[in-house]
Amino acid sequence: MKKLGILTIILVCFTPFLLLAQTPATKVKIPPLSQETSACLECHKQFTPGIVEDWLRSRHSKIMPSTALKMREIERRISAKKVATPYGNVVVGCFECHSLNSGKHKDNFDHMGFKINVVVSPNDCGICHPAEAKEFSGSKKAHAIGNLAKNPVYHTFVETVISKKAVKGGKIVQLDVSDFTRQETCFSCHGTEVKVIGMQEVETKMGKIEIPNLTQWPNQGVGRINPDGSLGACSACHARHEFSIEVARKPYTCAQCHLEPDVPAWNVYHESKHGDIYLSNSQKWNFTAVPWKVGRDFQTPTCATCHNSLITTVDGRRVAERSHDFGARLWVRLFGLIYSHPQPKHGDTSVLRNKDGLPLPTAFTGEVATVGLIDREEQTKRKKLMSEVCNSCHSTSWVNRHFEKLDNTIKEVDSMILASTLLLVEAWNQGLAEGLPQGKNPFDEAIEQMWIRQWLFYSNSIKYASAMTGAPDYATFKNGWWNLTENLQQMKDWVELRKKAKELSSK
Amino acid sequence: MKKLGILTIILVCFTPFLLLAQTPATKVKIPPLSQETSACLECHKQFTPGIVEDWLRSRHSKIMPSTALKMREIERRISAKKVATPYGNVVVGCFECHSLNSGKHKDNFDHMGFKINVVVSPNDCGICHPAEAKEFSGSKKAHAIGNLAKNPVYHTFVETVISKKAVKGGKIVQLDVSDFTRQETCFSCHGTEVKVIGMQEVETKMGKIEIPNLTQWPNQGVGRINPDGSLGACSACHARHEFSIEVARKPYTCAQCHLEPDVPAWNVYHESKHGDIYLSNSQKWNFTAVPWKVGRDFQTPTCATCHNSLITTVDGRRVAERSHDFGARLWVRLFGLIYSHPQPKHGDTSVLRNKDGLPLPTAFTGEVATVGLIDREEQTKRKKLMSEVCNSCHSTSWVNRHFEKLDNTIKEVDSMILASTLLLVEAWNQGLAEGLPQGKNPFDEAIEQMWIRQWLFYSNSIKYASAMTGAPDYATFKNGWWNLTENLQQMKDWVELRKKAKELSSK
Amino acid sequence: MKKLGILTIILVCFTPFLLLAQTPATKVKIPPLSQETSACLECHKQFTPGIVEDWLRSRHSKIMPSTALKMREIERRISAKKVATPYGNVVVGCFECHSLNSGKHKDNFDHMGFKINVVVSPNDCGICHPAEAKEFSGSKKAHAIGNLAKNPVYHTFVETVISKKAVKGGKIVQLDVSDFTRQETCFSCHGTEVKVIGMQEVETKMGKIEIPNLTQWPNQGVGRINPDGSLGACSACHARHEFSIEVARKPYTCAQCHLEPDVPAWNVYHESKHGDIYLSNSQKWNFTAVPWKVGRDFQTPTCATCHNSLITTVDGRRVAERSHDFGARLWVRLFGLIYSHPQPKHGDTSVLRNKDGLPLPTAFTGEVATVGLIDREEQTKRKKLMSEVCNSCHSTSWVNRHFEKLDNTIKEVDSMILASTLLLVEAWNQGLAEGLPQGKNPFDEAIEQMWIRQWLFYSNSIKYASAMTGAPDYATFKNGWWNLTENLQQMKDWVELRKKAKELSSK
Repeated sequence: MKKLGILTIILVCFTPFLLLAQTPATKVKIPPLSQETSACLECHKQFTPGIVEDWLRSRHSKIMPSTALKMREIERRISAKKVATPYGNVVVGCFECHSLNSGKHKDNFDHMGFKINVVVSPNDCGICHPAEAKEFSGSKKAHAIGNLAKNPVYHTFVETVISKKAVKGGKIVQLDVSDFTRQETCFSCHGTEVKVIGMQEVETKMGKIEIPNLTQWPNQGVGRINPDGSLGACSACHARHEFSIEVARKPYTCAQCHLEPDVPAWNVYHESKHGDIYLSNSQKWNFTAVPWKVGRDFQTPTCATCHNSLITTVDGRRVAERSHDFGARLWVRLFGLIYSHPQPKHGDTSVLRNKDGLPLPTAFTGEVATVGLIDREEQTKRKKLMSEVCNSCHSTSWVNRHFEKLDNTIKEVDSMILASTLLLVEAWNQGLAEGLPQGKNPFDEAIEQMWIRQWLFYSNSIKYASAMTGAPDYATFKNGWWNLTENLQQMKDWVELRKKAKELSSK
Repeated sequence: MKKLGILTIILVCFTPFLLLAQTPATKVKIPPLSQETSACLECHKQFTPGIVEDWLRSRHSKIMPSTALKMREIERRISAKKVATPYGNVVVGCFECHSLNSGKHKDNFDHMGFKINVVVSPNDCGICHPAEAKEFSGSKKAHAIGNLAKNPVYHTFVETVISKKAVKGGKIVQLDVSDFTRQETCFSCHGTEVKVIGMQEVETKMGKIEIPNLTQWPNQGVGRINPDGSLGACSACHARHEFSIEVARKPYTCAQCHLEPDVPAWNVYHESKHGDIYLSNSQKWNFTAVPWKVGRDFQTPTCATCHNSLITTVDGRRVAERSHDFGARLWVRLFGLIYSHPQPKHGDTSVLRNKDGLPLPTAFTGEVATVGLIDREEQTKRKKLMSEVCNSCHSTSWVNRHFEKLDNTIKEVDSMILASTLLLVEAWNQGLAEGLPQGKNPFDEAIEQMWIRQWLFYSNSIKYASAMTGAPDYATFKNGWWNLTENLQQMKDWVELRKKAKELSSK
Repeated sequence: MKKLGILTIILVCFTPFLLLAQTPATKVKIPPLSQETSACLECHKQFTPGIVEDWLRSRHSKIMPSTALKMREIERRISAKKVATPYGNVVVGCFECHSLNSGKHKDNFDHMGFKINVVVSPNDCGICHPAEAKEFSGSKKAHAIGNLAKNPVYHTFVETVISKKAVKGGKIVQLDVSDFTRQETCFSCHGTEVKVIGMQEVETKMGKIEIPNLTQWPNQGVGRINPDGSLGACSACHARHEFSIEVARKPYTCAQCHLEPDVPAWNVYHESKHGDIYLSNSQKWNFTAVPWKVGRDFQTPTCATCHNSLITTVDGRRVAERSHDFGARLWVRLFGLIYSHPQPKHGDTSVLRNKDGLPLPTAFTGEVATVGLIDREEQTKRKKLMSEVCNSCHSTSWVNRHFEKLDNTIKEVDSMILASTLLLVEAWNQGLAEGLPQGKNPFDEAIEQMWIRQWLFYSNSIKYASAMTGAPDYATFKNGWWNLTENLQQMKDWVELRKKAKELSSK
């Protein structure tokens, strides 16, 4: 391999440093770049121009942390009280982010004479955004891998769904699961574990170069385990390299992972009056204002409004505080599990214990876990935080009635799930299918798959539609009561038909 | 309860009346507000700022009815010939709408010294918009509750779908339906009956206040029964409190209720060439122009263009008249019922009678009702109204052929539904399921649910795709011919398997 | 019939020629119109104003080919080296396009004294855009009808899906398929054969006129067979009469045919990070720039970026060449067929031969055809073309890993399809269903329909999600691994239940 030195780079990147002069954004005074970032840009402008252009659009390329610190606190996008020199007095460029905390970064490597980290982690972003990094680190999002992969029940479910199968001797046999498939299914959202397993040589336009060999990379999953040991990926929502607050505030970002059939937040929003007005009018709104002024900057909420943005009134009254713990305003957990239940206390849900001693928020028949969930007082507090946001546009009685309706829906839907669970148990007990009583996989037979649809797809849809002020078709025909009802009937028919067949066989 | 007087309000709402001065819209001369509305705004700016900001965006906050009356008739958004003083000489603010016809409003109550109606009804909007209120009052939309809930057949269907169920003694048993669930499923679109059942005390930021206790509220369903006895909710499409013509003209508004799987107007539009051009170019169009000029203000139709807007050419030729009876340009009814049929004469469809004497537009095997549907002459007249809109961009032969194609599609799809119905009848007659012949619920068994899918989901999709100039995937694989065919096969298999089981049992 | 002469037209179209003076676009100097186009506009402004307004928006109405030829080659939208007088020195109006190559056009007719073609074909567009016409003519898109309708296997599939059915003697019987239904389902995208079968009289606002009677018209399918014998419809993507490059570059256009469940390109894009950023930010991008500058004019690709646009960097380096052969950068074919395989060499796929001698790209059990598919060298070359586009924003190792992942996904998914195929073969061999071994339709029984879902819907979804950098829910729950797994289970259950019934019957 021909190792390239700095001299070679200069020869290759012969283009004069006209980069910034060409961009419209730089007709105004150009803020100072670090020497290192200038060097990065010289080559990467040639080789990955899209990244450079994206960064040029970003606030990072235009404002030095030291300038940011001069703004009124409520208008600041950084939460650090001070930012160490020299980083404070240059704009936030390639090198500023990709060189941080290099001691911790197993993915740090020598790149054209610079020591570079491949993966920028929440721990690195935390240099300027420490409050956000801390809030995020305690959230369920930060623990999205462990909560899924290390829980034996969910782990079985995941492997059942995404494993290759073959039909052998009249039976469907589960084969292995590849890391590639894990990476592009469940763990594309939940995040992968990115580890350094040595160096690799890559053939590029500049010749061969040596770079770290990373496992399950690329991945921007929200719970990614990074080579520096930190959890999460800020880029999941603030996409590289514009790191836009606008993109993060728009619902398409959340919609990448929170969509039908299992988490139909986007679909329900699209169908709601909030979504209608967003889709019709949002081109006239201000998605970059900090603080975000209700009514003025936006007419109806996006996901970020209700769940995590700093919201004020036009005249500055604080309606809701910013939080990057996305469950901070939530009191009840609606999706992903068999029954609804109070939010977990910690982002790491492995500490939960249901009455059977399993790390689950409810028992198989719905009883709420006694360890690890928030109490009624905390629930009330959080409901009040959320209600403050609703109250900006809706009267108190409106909001109260809305949440009463949600409480009722949760109860009704959970009762439908219990009916389905009892049918499944009957099928198991009568030996028509093999599951928990037989110590077998409870997720791999037809009746079990029907049962999964009930809680993972249909009950979630109805609860979301109720929570988000209405998506009538979702709650009725799309993935709602119609489907709960039809599928329950099919479960019963499945049981009846097998009973009948068994009975006839034994004649 | 501490009852709050006007004095208290003034003390609480200490903020100087800077409200309007802060809004960009008011750099121009501020039109006069009524004293009452000024008082509303002083407090509500604090307590529900989103509503106030929304209203500030509205035309209502900027133009007095008396000014509106000076415009050329074709450009007017109000249809009243005159508007009574004092309402004519102030802008249309909170009090102007929320105090109208108070004698009729059972939801009128004393609020901080003012007599206020909670719910503004079409009858109230009709003070300035009488033509629209009258057109709407005769439409199927205005009768959306009764048409669904008071028809015994549909009522049974609704209750079957949205009732809680339990499995008892090997059977699925229907339990009750809650008002809350009605409110967020079928009747979220169709509307709820909002009645006053007394007063209630609510804890607000201003202390405890007394307000009317309303049933099934909040609801903005298009057929809502209001506390003043009127039918409908203008806010279903002209969302509060901007009351935007732009939002109402954009397809996202219609899409809240007219979407897959049962009424896939939005989905078909999205996939059509009209939808493609709308989605690609509409940010450059004019959605507030009155009249709405074909080709100039918009390139392709939205729902409103074809169904109810006043359309002219650039040089003022009237292409189509405005109507708030949304069926006024429709001759055939495509969705929601088993078979297609001529449009009902009246918005209230309870007067229909099929050959079996039931209040339905067709018989079970497709014969069209003899009472209550428009005749061929009226059909021809309406088709011509719609064709005028098409003809603005398409040649006569194109349009003719388009509607010939639709006629054929209706016939073919209805024949597929008849085949499905006959299979269902066979299942009933052979005792494989219990339905009409047994005097039992025809909507609650698996074979019945399959049959419902045929007409409620799949045939609708194909007919919509045909009517709206094409959504080939919808008509084929998404919810179309593929599904009609596959599901018919499954119905037949269901019947065969039960026959076989019965035969074996009786051996 | 009252035949209308030119004199009558002049009398009818009495409006002074104020057309252009009224449009905002014409405050600048009006480029010369041909006399013939002026005559068209005088009447059509009255009778089809939408078409005229659309054309006024187009580049065609503003720039003469002779002006276009003066631009730098890289900025040109026309590929002709010169354009013959007189067409070069007028803007491209109605007559310029609708009168071309009249000798070849069987749809040419006398219209108000002018000889007009109804259908403008790729051969006509090729006068100014010869490179595009030629590239397109060799593409699979241009052969979309024949590839579907003339292949006996696909033909059977199509007719099975879209034929009317009846239930006779306990069996589902396929009846006929109407041309109208063909036209609005499969062939709405694939295109119809538009033939002239005489003249017809049409009643218009101007009285009766005689026009050609065309079969299966209107249609803008991408493989349309035109009355001049040419293949294709440029208007499929460049919609009439704006012929916008912006519309063609936006994903909604491709989404009309490439959408779920069979070709979920749009749905996967919407869910991907590329789609997220497009939906959030594209209102700020430049969709008309030629060449299209990566990073500057757009931040993330649309369909056109990766598949066919001319892409350069900001400083002019060519990243990818324009091609209207939309498969030019593709090496593997992911959708529409049972198994993945190398791209066909020619747009006309009738020349393919699998090991059984059938014109199919693979055998029934997956072996790739030996005749008609591109070789490994060509595959490598095309993958490199596509990688160049990716490399504009992503590092080499990122891109390499992405395509390794895709390779793995294709292999895994194809193995799941093989498992499903073997189950189907078992059902056939055991006489539980009738298909290939019995010389019967392999697409019309329940187990066959389940098998079709596996490859036509679910495996496609997973492969698309993998190819387009991720749509995790699509690959998992929406139409992905969950569905492949659940449906395989249902296939097995179907087989088991029929085996059991057979066994019991024979007791």
